[in-house]
Amino acid sequence: MSFEAAVHAQAIELDRLAIDMTADSGSGHPTTALSLGHLITVLMFRTMRWSPDFPDYPTSDRLVLSEGHAVPIVYAAAAKLGTKVGKDGDLRKLTLADLKTLRERDSVLDGHPNPMEGFPFFDAATGSLGQGLSVAAGLAEAARIDGFDKRIYCIIGDGESREGQITEALDIIVERKLNRVLPIFNCNEWGQAGRVSEQQSADRIAAKLKAAGYTVKVIDGHSPKQIDEAFEAFGALTDQDAPMALVAKTVKGWGAPSMQGGGWHGKPATGEALATAKAELDQRRVELTTALSSSDAFTIEPPTEPPAMAEPTGEWPSLPETMKKLDMESVLHTGKLATRRAYGIALRALGHVDPRVVVLDADVSNSTFADAFAKDDALASRFVECKIAEQNMVSMAAGMSAGGKVPFCSTFAKFFNRAYDQIEMAINSGANLKMVGSHAGITLAADGPSQMSLPDVAWFRAWSTMKDHRGNPGCYLLQPADAFAAYALTGVMAEYEGACYMRTLRAETEFLYNEHEVFNLGGFHVLHKGRDVCICAAGYMVHEANRAVELLDQAGISATLVDLYSLPFDSDMLLDIIMENNGMAISIEDNYGGGIGSAIADAMTEAGDAFTLEQMHVRRIPKSAKTPDEMLQMCNLTAGDLVAKAKSILQVV
Amino acid sequence: MSFEAAVHAQAIELDRLAIDMTADSGSGHPTTALSLGHLITVLMFRTMRWSPDFPDYPTSDRLVLSEGHAVPIVYAAAAKLGTKVGKDGDLRKLTLADLKTLRERDSVLDGHPNPMEGFPFFDAATGSLGQGLSVAAGLAEAARIDGFDKRIYCIIGDGESREGQITEALDIIVERKLNRVLPIFNCNEWGQAGRVSEQQSADRIAAKLKAAGYTVKVIDGHSPKQIDEAFEAFGALTDQDAPMALVAKTVKGWGAPSMQGGGWHGKPATGEALATAKAELDQRRVELTTALSSSDAFTIEPPTEPPAMAEPTGEWPSLPETMKKLDMESVLHTGKLATRRAYGIALRALGHVDPRVVVLDADVSNSTFADAFAKDDALASRFVECKIAEQNMVSMAAGMSAGGKVPFCSTFAKFFNRAYDQIEMAINSGANLKMVGSHAGITLAADGPSQMSLPDVAWFRAWSTMKDHRGNPGCYLLQPADAFAAYALTGVMAEYEGACYMRTLRAETEFLYNEHEVFNLGGFHVLHKGRDVCICAAGYMVHEANRAVELLDQAGISATLVDLYSLPFDSDMLLDIIMENNGMAISIEDNYGGGIGSAIADAMTEAGDAFTLEQMHVRRIPKSAKTPDEMLQMCNLTAGDLVAKAKSILQVV
Repeated sequence: MSFEAAVHAQAIELDRLAIDMTADSGSGHPTTALSLGHLITVLMFRTMRWSPDFPDYPTSDRLVLSEGHAVPIVYAAAAKLGTKVGKDGDLRKLTLADLKTLRERDSVLDGHPNPMEGFPFFDAATGSLGQGLSVAAGLAEAARIDGFDKRIYCIIGDGESREGQITEALDIIVERKLNRVLPIFNCNEWGQAGRVSEQQSADRIAAKLKAAGYTVKVIDGHSPKQIDEAFEAFGALTDQDAPMALVAKTVKGWGAPSMQGGGWHGKPATGEALATAKAELDQRRVELTTALSSSDAFTIEPPTEPPAMAEPTGEWPSLPETMKKLDMESVLHTGKLATRRAYGIALRALGHVDPRVVVLDADVSNSTFADAFAKDDALASRFVECKIAEQNMVSMAAGMSAGGKVPFCSTFAKFFNRAYDQIEMAINSGANLKMVGSHAGITLAADGPSQMSLPDVAWFRAWSTMKDHRGNPGCYLLQPADAFAAYALTGVMAEYEGACYMRTLRAETEFLYNEHEVFNLGGFHVLHKGRDVCICAAGYMVHEANRAVELLDQAGISATLVDLYSLPFDSDMLLDIIMENNGMAISIEDNYGGGIGSAIADAMTEAGDAFTLEQMHVRRIPKSAKTPDEMLQMCNLTAGDLVAKAKSILQVV
Repeated sequence: MSFEAAVHAQAIELDRLAIDMTADSGSGHPTTALSLGHLITVLMFRTMRWSPDFPDYPTSDRLVLSEGHAVPIVYAAAAKLGTKVGKDGDLRKLTLADLKTLRERDSVLDGHPNPMEGFPFFDAATGSLGQGLSVAAGLAEAARIDGFDKRIYCIIGDGESREGQITEALDIIVERKLNRVLPIFNCNEWGQAGRVSEQQSADRIAAKLKAAGYTVKVIDGHSPKQIDEAFEAFGALTDQDAPMALVAKTVKGWGAPSMQGGGWHGKPATGEALATAKAELDQRRVELTTALSSSDAFTIEPPTEPPAMAEPTGEWPSLPETMKKLDMESVLHTGKLATRRAYGIALRALGHVDPRVVVLDADVSNSTFADAFAKDDALASRFVECKIAEQNMVSMAAGMSAGGKVPFCSTFAKFFNRAYDQIEMAINSGANLKMVGSHAGITLAADGPSQMSLPDVAWFRAWSTMKDHRGNPGCYLLQPADAFAAYALTGVMAEYEGACYMRTLRAETEFLYNEHEVFNLGGFHVLHKGRDVCICAAGYMVHEANRAVELLDQAGISATLVDLYSLPFDSDMLLDIIMENNGMAISIEDNYGGGIGSAIADAMTEAGDAFTLEQMHVRRIPKSAKTPDEMLQMCNLTAGDLVAKAKSILQVV
């Protein structure tokens, strides 16, 4: 059988399976699947170097299906090849019979690619569009660091390529010469609600790719020969070559004219329409090949052995030790240091003890202090300057995590806001993602609200109310109040497997701790023990609360002060402490509501005892002010405001 | 004085003011400002048709400063021209003396453009990068609808143009032929942490713009003649011409070599460095012009009179009336209708009574049912298909709001997630933005978690804990449980000025209300009055709770059911009701925690009485399941789970 005939036979078999599978499930996107039958056949049966027995083998070539809704065609190929599926190491071969379980509650075949639910062939959960190419770039960057000769294929929809994140990823691939990534644009001309824009036509996409620095091949995405030649050309690229991109002209609903055109997005064929579509595909097969199936016609080249990997080495030094090494002892003696600086110092120490650690930043590394890592010659090759493109940074970090790295991303806390969808998809992917947002809250003051993170605590707290696939909180939210806490928590994050978000501060803050203090995910510290009222604060507000405790003491009020540096926290222990303060508590935060105050309120009301909580937080859109103190005044969050609040709830005149 | 000499003189005067202003404030971005001195001079003193006395006049040409940190140069020009500033109609002329107040607490000169704090020359708060061009596109679209001959100039940083949202905006400008927008790329070659990427070099940007369909002019951004000629060419464009874009090669810190190169981003000159920079600028002036000042050399053409605008006409019809008109009476008789369909029907009715209403969607209008508006010939010209680019959609809507429209945006609730930064900036801008997220929560089931909105309620709730510039909640969060509620709330949103987010559902839901029920922002409805426990639910979960109330009744437990369709809500009234239920409450939600449960917990703990609240919400990352019921089982959120929870807290065996 000729290669062409074999590809057609195999593609049509997969197409039929995709149509049947979505018909069985009653939902899904068969027509998008059909536009990819030939591309997936050549990729998975011939071009990719991988092993169905070890679908997540580290040196395997990877497929990132950015247009996740096309997944039935990949499931069909995976079943045909007996690819291993399953969770927690309990793997078995996927069978054709399994395809009937698409989208079922107990199936490994989720509605969109979902590796953590038992399909380890994929590295990332996709389905929210525009993110896959960044993941692919991250996989390539990780492979480059490890010296793996690994190719990453990424399939992107034409309509999908309207998402700006795609251009962010295209830029970083050129910039960092990640030419082991092949972006494949599936130009099938139909979106969900209508035709794809002329701005995303195959020709326009090709022109844009060329302008961005790519060598572009425009092919017929249903021509086995053209597909194969393009992949061969990609495989022949040397390190010196410009990255390549493929623009594949395809047909949505290929082979089944009755399912083509508008109105067929996300719609399975049923009844007569199903029979018609399958008859049309059979007719197409008769025209193109004599074979019913052809998987035997292909040989898959296996991945190579991975080289021995570097392991974490020994203990990491304390903050004073690291600062001494960096000739920063004099800074230590000032008794204060911004938490963002401590993060930078920690990153640098961490880089030397843990070779898995990589750092990404978005053109603000001299503000977040991630540049401490970038400027260390021994670490610089593990630093990725992502420029002003936060969405790409987060998804690329997710890709690096899938490639075995421990990625720390930093930018202003405010700007993580624009990557929340990417963060969610990374958490769904099980990514070991560490996010550090600097200039958190309102105390950056002068720059004004466009640079302030205000609803961030509420959003990340939502992730502390549920569990990830490992049974841990979806994300830990950490708010160190001083440099020792920030330094320690950076180390804690690196050791933990899962997502964390740490808020650091622009302003210098005084030391509250020393190098012997232990910080845990889920922990908190009692900084002052009183009996009348329990003040709960985090980050910058711990310092304001500290001043309030002194003022209250002078007024004869004995206040407890809790540094609630972690969300979630041990709520039973906290409630015990509040109970020792007659059930009276005040929370104070430098962000909008829904944050640590609400976390305490949740715990109190679940316990059901008579607690009182006054929440102090930002209750207006802030504007610029010259200093943190002025800003706190504007938002009624000074030590004085806290004292007044305490007196008011204790009914002290 | 020659035009060139006049521009140089004026630009250098503005440059000096920008340096002084940032020196006085002790923070800000003088070098970025200096890269724009000439462009801003020609724009604000000559090219733009506007009036300093009426800086927000509807037919004025507009300037969107997407790279908001450059704002001191605009403040300098505005002061020089005596532009009116102030809030709430209390306007006065900005003076040169005012410039000393930059970034002060009581100043109208905020750290970044901030129209709501007293600088109405701007339409949108900027400073979080990459959003301005979308706002400009929205302003142009609004002007097109109104028949205004209005040009919109948008200045974008070269580093900033890495943000993918810029390409989303570039695409929609070409697609919708919005050639009254002029994107101006300020290519000064330096970012914050280092040089701008080669991917954002002037040449590369120009090539990309051409590939995207623009006529591109590359100019020296400090040549008065080249700037003027470019603006003239732009002014001469006819409706048939392709959009134009300007790539301006500029110098960061122009005229002051001592402030050029790396290390000067966001850093004012002080002391000797300040004196040096000013001396350098003075020297440059001597070389270029004999004049110290030249504002008299320019004439600003005023804006034209706006035509009479269409006003809202009369009452809008009830849901049954509208459905009758649409031949959908038979649907009404089924007793159920998805809230997303009711939204579409409401939009269509609204479009006919309120000419300000415009609708934007992101290629899912046949899922959100915004297509009901798009398909009505009388309304189609007010529908904007934004394709798969949610960030651009939201910022464009903010621009349309600034242009006097009432924009409704819709996409899946999940996908608003990727525009949260844009939503925040829109709220900061005072935008009258209505967001409707369909397929909310988990009951869409089969598509899996990549399509589910899960932390959205927590994020939007944060905005219900604070106040916007008008003294209202930053955003209302609405969760209609049936079609009557969704229809009514769509109308309520249109009448209200401010941001709202409404969650609609994929699934059909039974009618709970009729056309006589009144829904208010901040309201709730008691659907069942009991005495043992108060169940609070919203959206889909109201129906599950309704079933639970019946089951509980059979078990001898008398439950109250509150449809908490709005956040915020009247907490005193709700607590009274819970108190009538012995202080016992259960909340049930189809999202992660931090949502309505936490809102109730906040209210309870502030009141300080002995309440008990059990919060039921999604506590795992969901996966696909075939039906809403299966999904609710997976997440332990069925009526049965609710009954068990009620029995448990009431200690009924």
